[in-house]
Amino acid sequence: MELRLTSDEVIKLKEREDIYSALKRAGIYLVASCGGKGTCGKCKVKIVEGECDVISYGKLTQKERESNIILACQSIPKSDVLVEILKESRLVVGDKIAIARTKDLVEYLKSYGVDINPAVKRIYIELPPPTISDNISDLERLKRTLNEKGLRNMRFSHGFVSTMAEILRSSNWNVELTYLNGEGVSGEAIFLTDPESCNRRHGIAVDIGTTTVVVYLANLSTGEIVDIGSTYNSQMRYGDDVITRIVYATEGGGLNELRDAVVTDINTIVNSLMERHSIEACEIDTATIAGNTTMSHIFWGLNPGSIREEPYIPTLNHFPQWKGGTAKLSINPQSPVYTVPCVASYVGGDIAAGVLASKMHRNPEIALFMDIGTNGEIAIGNNEWLMTAACSMGPCFEGSGVRCGMRATSGAVESVKIDPETYEPAINVIGGGHPMGICGSGMIDSISEMFLTGVIDQKGKFVKGKTDRIRQGEEGLEFVLYRDEAHNKDIVLTEVDVENIIRAKAALYAGIKTLLSEVGFTMDAIEKVYIAGGFGNYINVERAIILGMLPDIPKERFVFMGNTSITGAYLCLLSEELRREAEDIASKMTYIELSVYRSFMDEYMSALFLPHTDMSQFPTVASRLK
Amino acid sequence: MELRLTSDEVIKLKEREDIYSALKRAGIYLVASCGGKGTCGKCKVKIVEGECDVISYGKLTQKERESNIILACQSIPKSDVLVEILKESRLVVGDKIAIARTKDLVEYLKSYGVDINPAVKRIYIELPPPTISDNISDLERLKRTLNEKGLRNMRFSHGFVSTMAEILRSSNWNVELTYLNGEGVSGEAIFLTDPESCNRRHGIAVDIGTTTVVVYLANLSTGEIVDIGSTYNSQMRYGDDVITRIVYATEGGGLNELRDAVVTDINTIVNSLMERHSIEACEIDTATIAGNTTMSHIFWGLNPGSIREEPYIPTLNHFPQWKGGTAKLSINPQSPVYTVPCVASYVGGDIAAGVLASKMHRNPEIALFMDIGTNGEIAIGNNEWLMTAACSMGPCFEGSGVRCGMRATSGAVESVKIDPETYEPAINVIGGGHPMGICGSGMIDSISEMFLTGVIDQKGKFVKGKTDRIRQGEEGLEFVLYRDEAHNKDIVLTEVDVENIIRAKAALYAGIKTLLSEVGFTMDAIEKVYIAGGFGNYINVERAIILGMLPDIPKERFVFMGNTSITGAYLCLLSEELRREAEDIASKMTYIELSVYRSFMDEYMSALFLPHTDMSQFPTVASRLK
Repeated sequence: MELRLTSDEVIKLKEREDIYSALKRAGIYLVASCGGKGTCGKCKVKIVEGECDVISYGKLTQKERESNIILACQSIPKSDVLVEILKESRLVVGDKIAIARTKDLVEYLKSYGVDINPAVKRIYIELPPPTISDNISDLERLKRTLNEKGLRNMRFSHGFVSTMAEILRSSNWNVELTYLNGEGVSGEAIFLTDPESCNRRHGIAVDIGTTTVVVYLANLSTGEIVDIGSTYNSQMRYGDDVITRIVYATEGGGLNELRDAVVTDINTIVNSLMERHSIEACEIDTATIAGNTTMSHIFWGLNPGSIREEPYIPTLNHFPQWKGGTAKLSINPQSPVYTVPCVASYVGGDIAAGVLASKMHRNPEIALFMDIGTNGEIAIGNNEWLMTAACSMGPCFEGSGVRCGMRATSGAVESVKIDPETYEPAINVIGGGHPMGICGSGMIDSISEMFLTGVIDQKGKFVKGKTDRIRQGEEGLEFVLYRDEAHNKDIVLTEVDVENIIRAKAALYAGIKTLLSEVGFTMDAIEKVYIAGGFGNYINVERAIILGMLPDIPKERFVFMGNTSITGAYLCLLSEELRREAEDIASKMTYIELSVYRSFMDEYMSALFLPHTDMSQFPTVASRLK
Repeated sequence: MELRLTSDEVIKLKEREDIYSALKRAGIYLVASCGGKGTCGKCKVKIVEGECDVISYGKLTQKERESNIILACQSIPKSDVLVEILKESRLVVGDKIAIARTKDLVEYLKSYGVDINPAVKRIYIELPPPTISDNISDLERLKRTLNEKGLRNMRFSHGFVSTMAEILRSSNWNVELTYLNGEGVSGEAIFLTDPESCNRRHGIAVDIGTTTVVVYLANLSTGEIVDIGSTYNSQMRYGDDVITRIVYATEGGGLNELRDAVVTDINTIVNSLMERHSIEACEIDTATIAGNTTMSHIFWGLNPGSIREEPYIPTLNHFPQWKGGTAKLSINPQSPVYTVPCVASYVGGDIAAGVLASKMHRNPEIALFMDIGTNGEIAIGNNEWLMTAACSMGPCFEGSGVRCGMRATSGAVESVKIDPETYEPAINVIGGGHPMGICGSGMIDSISEMFLTGVIDQKGKFVKGKTDRIRQGEEGLEFVLYRDEAHNKDIVLTEVDVENIIRAKAALYAGIKTLLSEVGFTMDAIEKVYIAGGFGNYINVERAIILGMLPDIPKERFVFMGNTSITGAYLCLLSEELRREAEDIASKMTYIELSVYRSFMDEYMSALFLPHTDMSQFPTVASRLK
């Protein structure tokens, strides 16, 4: 049976497979924060032709049912079906720019001046087959030849030895050994392969974001990206931010559930990439993961509890290279998995990877790196020193805590311009068409426009009567960005939303100020600003400066980096020198725990205005307001 | 509810526990080659008082049922019960002498002049608790203190790190680290314990015999044996000898079943020893196992297939110290398990352990070590050289392939004297009373007596008409050792039995001859003969010489060692120096594959007589016959 999409894709269905799973297998992801359990009601598709067994209609309205709309995860085709994926159901992960960039990644890697040198090496070995007169054991035979090649004192795991005898014989004693180079000490044998049947070498780089998971499948010989996959982190169903997940892991006893959720996400992608490119598990030699400290802990099944409790101590920051099997990854169970090192409880491997990807640790100019997300991690420094902190911005720029907030996916209002005369907003929607909510960049635009046009004051309060777009809503005053009478669902920004956004931008700005003043610098010392994260791709720097979120320095100093966590993970996958640099970055960075810094609180209070109480810090905004 | 035995033991019953399991838990083992499945019909007990739910009567006869005999594994007491264990059902493992000796083992260990030095060490560590200003991760904190103590570059497994955070906190940052000393290279952290709650240090030494499993629980600080347990190797239900088990593992796909069988046996003993002495899993720091090459492979779940196929190559002889968890042992999963090294496919760790226990590798005198069992492994040498071989004696001395053969347990005829006038045999039965079969030493006695009295000739053929004890049986001529008219089950030795026994003794003698001639020695060069194995405890040297099984050298050169495999495992458990000696022994021994040696076949043919075709090799027997 076939599943056809109105967008022309055709997917062969497995026996009794639901539509959600079939789409997922083909790399088409639907919004489903419940992970396909039928409870969130988000994976809506419309049946155009054909019939399905519908297990449950879940939260669908009567009207939706009448329009042949079903939940993909609850519907099993009984015949060939043609379905239309509703725009709001399609999961578009915000790594579009990263994907566009991947062709240049090999060049980017080369720009570091390092060799391609993954965590594991391969060596071709011809062993003399055993005879009655040369009857030492298989392992002693292997060791003898390795000794001749100068590879001594290697460690041999039980997993390695378990499969050794069979491979030696099936490959007629001519094998390739994949091994881990010991750093100064003895190395470790990883696995044996038959060079005839397993001759390609791949690795996977994984960015474990709190919200999304991105996987790059790379050729370890050339460095080329073979393919990319991404999905929402299914941990989302247990909470949006790391704190909620730590609580769930510890108090809810759900550590293993959270771990399984994200590992299954990664494996689903890896399996589909392997299938698509006919790659065997034995052809994936190694993996690299980068994630914040909580994500890294949960990935390895380590209790993240103490991350949340003062004095905020992770179990570890520098992870040994444990095995793929230990990680439960669907790659070769013996393959080593490198974890990009974390710095502290709230500055993780994603940030170390980001700094590595920005090269700021190699250059003399003073740079600011920022990942504008829930935690708002920042790093400041150059090739001599590095400081870092997490600003606890909260998740509002990712859509949470804002009435009509949503992530920067199809249907999100991404930019706004308000007519200073009529106060009518002109909006741009991602993917065009009907808006469904407002994303981070849309929020920044809206608030800076509302501020410039006098709809809100310096404290973010609505100026009543300014325009009839300001109205009394259920939770107080709100500004109507888009009237949607047809769906009876206007897109608004409430006064509470504005407060939340101002708090978030104040936290970020105060963090930057505090870090700089620790080293005796002011904002204009910053020669480069690297902005990371999916969110960073859409940000309007000028508006963010008006908001008082970004420092008022020349626009040309800002560089958008896209997903630097996956870029850093990719760099570490391919180069031993860059893995060492990542370790150095993480060890070298001085971490400032802002939550216990008095000066941070002062800076924060001062930043709870538009753009700031101290207008001298925002000269271009000051002159514009005049 | 209680289970009382007529021998006065009282066992508290668990809910719905069968009698077999309850007895096993109390360290009382019944014969049950099916492992308690009700199919072998051997675990017979008699209910004297009380009532049971009987699930099945299995193979019990009507008469047995009428006498209140039931199968222990199929019977669940409904009330307090008093039972009598039938003599033939009680499993008496042949390590009585070894057990008697255990009090001297510490002295024996000391006689090697080595320190007590197990595979793992413990160190007490006080860590400064983390604060906001000293907020490095748990692992970095631990490493910092270890560095101060000179312990650098340690490896940290995922298992170690998984439990680290909790123990550090519950013990208020004062912990004991158990670690594996790196041999020249870096070591490995094994586990952390709270010194308050886990202050004893134990280890287990295991002898994995083809037939029996013996466990010593030792105090790692003093070397003392805390307790001992033993059971039949449940692999017995898949076949008596290693070849049958290899076939089952490979062709039958039963590797995991065989592995689980023996690991469950070990765990059952270990758990009951731990329970009996209130020892926690965290107080068992390390384990040592010794077994033949096949047993060692199966224990670790490694396919023994190629051991059986020419050129007879094991996967490995020198085993890395893998983990208790990997071995599926019920000790601390992080604890290292040392495997006494094997020499070749048919000379295993039990023999290396035996040589170590004999000290022949330390002395200048030329010694012969022999383990008279199915394989009949022998080793010859001294502190300068060692040679070894396996003679493939077959299992007849262990009771298989001999009509009335049985192991040397209660009820076995263990010695025989035949009146040269009347040809009436006088027998001794182990445990006294009614004989149930004949064990190895009984066979040796019988045949040498039959030979001396002229009942059989030099070729082992019965001399018809010599006595009415020679009669025609179902399978040809047989000699009646014991008439049992009451049970209608005479104890006999058939002509076929005699042939089998002569073949076995010929294989052993030919092996010794071949090994000696390889180094240019004759029998009288042997200054010491160490005889190992349960069987060795009962052997009559003089009779064995008459049989032509043992070389005709002075009786005082023979030393009975008991179970040297468990003794060697114990020595390796306690001393790093002795582990190194065991490795040296295994590496140093020259293995001779007798099956492809032409001279072995010649020697074997010559030895198929009583005592030998070349009587000059048996001068004392020759003079006696005159």
